[in-house]
Amino acid sequence: MRDPRYDILFEPVQIGPVRTKNRFYVVPHATAMGMTALEEMIAFRKARAEGGWGVVCLEETMIHETSDHAPLPDPRMYHDKYIEPLSRVVSAVKEYGALAGVELAHAGASGPAIYHREHPLSPSTKYPHYFYNPIAARSIDRQDILDFRRWYRDAAIRAKKAGFDIIYVYCAHNLSLLQDFLDSGVNKRTDEYGGVFENRVRLLHETLSDVKDAVGDTCAVAVRFAVEERRRASSITALEDGRRVVEALADVPDLWDVNVSDWAWDSGSSRFFDEGQQEPFIDFVKKVTSKPVVGVGRFTSPDAMVSQIKRGVLDLIGAARPSISDPFLPNKINEGRQDDIRECIGCNACTAEVMTSSRIRCTQNPSAGEEHVSGWHPENVPAAHDPDASILVVGGGPAGLEAAHTLAKRGYQVSIADAGKEWGGRLVRERRLPRLSAWGRVVDYRVGQLQTMPNVNMYLDSPLGADDVGGFEADHVIVATGAKWRGGGVGRHHDEPIPGHDLPHVLTPEDILDDRLPKSGSVVVYDEDYYYMAAVVADRLAKAGCKVTYVTTASDPSPWTHNTLEMVHVINSMNEAGISIVVGTSIVSISEDSVRVNRLLDGADSEIAADAVVLVTGQVSEEGLYHQLVEKREAGLIRSVERIGDCLGAGQIAQATYDGRKAGMRFGTTTE
Amino acid sequence: MRDPRYDILFEPVQIGPVRTKNRFYVVPHATAMGMTALEEMIAFRKARAEGGWGVVCLEETMIHETSDHAPLPDPRMYHDKYIEPLSRVVSAVKEYGALAGVELAHAGASGPAIYHREHPLSPSTKYPHYFYNPIAARSIDRQDILDFRRWYRDAAIRAKKAGFDIIYVYCAHNLSLLQDFLDSGVNKRTDEYGGVFENRVRLLHETLSDVKDAVGDTCAVAVRFAVEERRRASSITALEDGRRVVEALADVPDLWDVNVSDWAWDSGSSRFFDEGQQEPFIDFVKKVTSKPVVGVGRFTSPDAMVSQIKRGVLDLIGAARPSISDPFLPNKINEGRQDDIRECIGCNACTAEVMTSSRIRCTQNPSAGEEHVSGWHPENVPAAHDPDASILVVGGGPAGLEAAHTLAKRGYQVSIADAGKEWGGRLVRERRLPRLSAWGRVVDYRVGQLQTMPNVNMYLDSPLGADDVGGFEADHVIVATGAKWRGGGVGRHHDEPIPGHDLPHVLTPEDILDDRLPKSGSVVVYDEDYYYMAAVVADRLAKAGCKVTYVTTASDPSPWTHNTLEMVHVINSMNEAGISIVVGTSIVSISEDSVRVNRLLDGADSEIAADAVVLVTGQVSEEGLYHQLVEKREAGLIRSVERIGDCLGAGQIAQATYDGRKAGMRFGTTTE
Repeated sequence: MRDPRYDILFEPVQIGPVRTKNRFYVVPHATAMGMTALEEMIAFRKARAEGGWGVVCLEETMIHETSDHAPLPDPRMYHDKYIEPLSRVVSAVKEYGALAGVELAHAGASGPAIYHREHPLSPSTKYPHYFYNPIAARSIDRQDILDFRRWYRDAAIRAKKAGFDIIYVYCAHNLSLLQDFLDSGVNKRTDEYGGVFENRVRLLHETLSDVKDAVGDTCAVAVRFAVEERRRASSITALEDGRRVVEALADVPDLWDVNVSDWAWDSGSSRFFDEGQQEPFIDFVKKVTSKPVVGVGRFTSPDAMVSQIKRGVLDLIGAARPSISDPFLPNKINEGRQDDIRECIGCNACTAEVMTSSRIRCTQNPSAGEEHVSGWHPENVPAAHDPDASILVVGGGPAGLEAAHTLAKRGYQVSIADAGKEWGGRLVRERRLPRLSAWGRVVDYRVGQLQTMPNVNMYLDSPLGADDVGGFEADHVIVATGAKWRGGGVGRHHDEPIPGHDLPHVLTPEDILDDRLPKSGSVVVYDEDYYYMAAVVADRLAKAGCKVTYVTTASDPSPWTHNTLEMVHVINSMNEAGISIVVGTSIVSISEDSVRVNRLLDGADSEIAADAVVLVTGQVSEEGLYHQLVEKREAGLIRSVERIGDCLGAGQIAQATYDGRKAGMRFGTTTE
Repeated sequence: MRDPRYDILFEPVQIGPVRTKNRFYVVPHATAMGMTALEEMIAFRKARAEGGWGVVCLEETMIHETSDHAPLPDPRMYHDKYIEPLSRVVSAVKEYGALAGVELAHAGASGPAIYHREHPLSPSTKYPHYFYNPIAARSIDRQDILDFRRWYRDAAIRAKKAGFDIIYVYCAHNLSLLQDFLDSGVNKRTDEYGGVFENRVRLLHETLSDVKDAVGDTCAVAVRFAVEERRRASSITALEDGRRVVEALADVPDLWDVNVSDWAWDSGSSRFFDEGQQEPFIDFVKKVTSKPVVGVGRFTSPDAMVSQIKRGVLDLIGAARPSISDPFLPNKINEGRQDDIRECIGCNACTAEVMTSSRIRCTQNPSAGEEHVSGWHPENVPAAHDPDASILVVGGGPAGLEAAHTLAKRGYQVSIADAGKEWGGRLVRERRLPRLSAWGRVVDYRVGQLQTMPNVNMYLDSPLGADDVGGFEADHVIVATGAKWRGGGVGRHHDEPIPGHDLPHVLTPEDILDDRLPKSGSVVVYDEDYYYMAAVVADRLAKAGCKVTYVTTASDPSPWTHNTLEMVHVINSMNEAGISIVVGTSIVSISEDSVRVNRLLDGADSEIAADAVVLVTGQVSEEGLYHQLVEKREAGLIRSVERIGDCLGAGQIAQATYDGRKAGMRFGTTTE
């Protein structure tokens, strides 16, 4: 079954007083499931334990009311009443032999504490980072420090009572009071907790010692520690204070969980970061401590995991996103089924849901976050109500492939047809754009699975009209024909087409996707879409030698990428590519060699020279076939039809796979 | 008791089949209390009924999963399971003889439906307004329209079962699918629901008729209708489609609840809008319909209310913010206690909490949103545990005044001292800045109340040192000494002082507050504070004849004012005042006649000429006295001390009054 090369991944690891069953470790990561979404939290974490992870951790769990990320619904451990509910998460995880961890945290100045109307805490008076809330974090005094230490100890004792095996002290992601104390840019204290390194590390040391004293007899005490802060100039780097912390506290914790800060670097998206990208920052840690080390790197390849361990970088393979994307990754490796791994594409749709205080989701794994709400399992599906029932899926993009896969797994007779020469729908072209190749895994996983299934017929190069569809005599037709980028410039700002949009040098993303690029020269790429496409088009054209100006009505470039943690990297990459960035500006009209633009803040008009213009302002569904089929259904010529994914309304790929799963799951139930 | 001039306000009004007890009407307004905050919702609405309002409405209550504002926790009526919980809100309201209303709504393209992972609905494919979510609202088809009408009808029937007296159809605030259908800028349909006015109004007409058919026998059916859309170019104006809708549907609803869209105009802040500002837009409505009309205008003056009715503008005095600020406004007028009204200051701290999906709060009324969570009542406080116990409050700003008032109402012996010649702390000077005069009501209300209380001693012009405090022999000392604007430029972006900050022409808001203005000339006002102060300083200096450039590191001017619905008005007023706006830019250094600035997006440096610079980058608490008193307490020289408000951490005035209330409420309980 298991490839012996991967045996090392299944060795147990001793962490203080506890022992894992293998090296697969779900590090603490946000889910936007707090105490008000307990059932969701239990079901989500349980699925990871069921899939074989040796350790499953709960995210930042607040030790005090002054540290609340509300409206983001964080778990809490600042009152005894939270012991019982969180013990249910522990039980669910332990049912499968996994250890349960909990990341006790105080968010310091990054916790706006809006819900509790508290003043955020900080080593020194300063506005909180991240939040615009008009309240200064207060400089905590000696009594506050004693309180803080007591809160941590008390929370740890509660966590032990709840049954957690691994209890964290949190000092990472620029989201922690303890990190603020370490950072000489934030900590301006003049007492024994500020100034020289020995003073700035004091509170972390005291807190770790307190927690070990309180619970270390039976629980492992871990520290989540960012060895380098990259968001801004900081004393915390892997060469300076980051290393000094590990040296100073080397064997104080039972486990070092190390990473790079802030979250935009820790959970770097695949557009900007490769698998294992943190290694150069964290590889010193194991050389300094004798304690086990866990770290992350968006690892989906068992060979890369083995290499990390053999080369002495990590003892435990940490994962957030790969475990969201495939909760059964460890079991699949254990069963020699590594080709069945649903690899994380690194799109950060998961973080976007957290950033918007919604429930976590996943592009690759539509069941993520739906384990309780929809009753979806990452691997198992309910059996077909009638295995002779047949479904035709028209369109082989993310939505259609996911629907076909779900229905085929359920045991139905599935035909899937696509007009193109390759599977993937929108991703056939998008995966070839700069930085988007990993997104192709959405297609590869599903096509790979479908091709092995005897109850599936797959037809490429098969455009279907409404009359063709009838010939399949399917019990149900799912239309997943996608969307096309619109011309004209109607988007978030413009209700009406932009004058000049029909000039021949005005393009849409369809042109770029088809490699109809402007001749080198000056190009304005105009973004009223606000996600990735305009920036990616700009990147493509800059690589092709154009002089690109990116113009958007938004106040920030690619504003949605704030939520996918990519905005800072989008901006940096535009600068590296020499792309000019113009924000808060609308295109008023387009002429043969320029665009007239209007600065929204003050209404000032100006001109930007442009040999070509690409309007990235939205998509329109390809819904013609669907409407024809509705007419046929109404005429009794076909039995049942629905549309999903971009054909219903263009959106993220995560929405398409979600729609596909939903269509697949409910066939034979509510839609009948 | 009651002034006979105000008798008209206490006349009943017939609305379809139901009859109010008076003309005071709490219109639907958001609270960020959804189904998960049911107890909070009940307690909040109940307090308004208790205070005498004749009608108390529930906010936007969603008729379908495709219309969810989650993570904003909206009420829902799309399943029978919501009937029972919302009936508890009805019962609480009816306990005091008020009618209960509910605003059934479908948010259309403004509802991101993230939580339910649905595609937002729209008359025509377009990105949703308001939200950056990367999903196109889908163009709804004929079946969807039938579904929509059924959802409304079903929700209305549920609302009737829950006991609501007034059931709304919602077409306002640019937050409604029905408004999207009306608006020719959004509705690009070519069927019988798009194109000419008669087609665009069809769905609103059908929906109103459906709801009347379903529940109109015993329930009043109201329409919430925006007669004018001011956010953007729109066919909906009081001269065009807005008026035509009222004409076309004049007597179809039982009640017209009319306003101006969007929310930034409907709930215009006092910085930009006066009491009664909507009258010119909505005054035509009563001339067109025979049905009663309700509207809003931040009315806190009974004379203004009477005038609205006598002049035939309104039949019912609608209120959102005045009822948040003083739930007992009707009873106070009824009892001839209009001087006790706690008048709304129009700061929109309430909307900011909703915009951030937090629980509603109020600057003037700290009990708002705390009725259940903290058990606070708008008017009543628990009696003193010991009426001989004495408290000294040091500092007569918002926090100190509120603490003193709460404690005095409880029956304690209260002394309050301030170093200044006027009560108000920060507000003494701030209320004299442009557009902030209404904020002074925070002071006037509390000072007015305190001055009538026999158990209160008030000392102005009384700076107290730590040794003076001992002389009061108070059982408890509350330090509310406020904060001062910092120099140096340390703020949200800068951890270290800005080179040149100590030059003589570099000012802080303290200088402007003290009227130490630069000579007319060019001034750079630098904003790392992100709320109102920098914009207000810029306004003040422009009015004084300076040529002002507003520079901020934020991507938008005064970014927090996005949440107070003021940003658009801040920008407009800056343009009117000739203030140049530079965003996304940091000051690198200051020299004698210019500042060197850095554009954060690309690191480009440039110079801005400046004869003076005002650094608005944050405040530092005046905490010296507090720390001295802690030492005295530790030495046994005073009994008990705490700090509140800006002295604890500078923030909104709403935080100061909250802190003051909390200190006042818990004295004699947990702090002892």
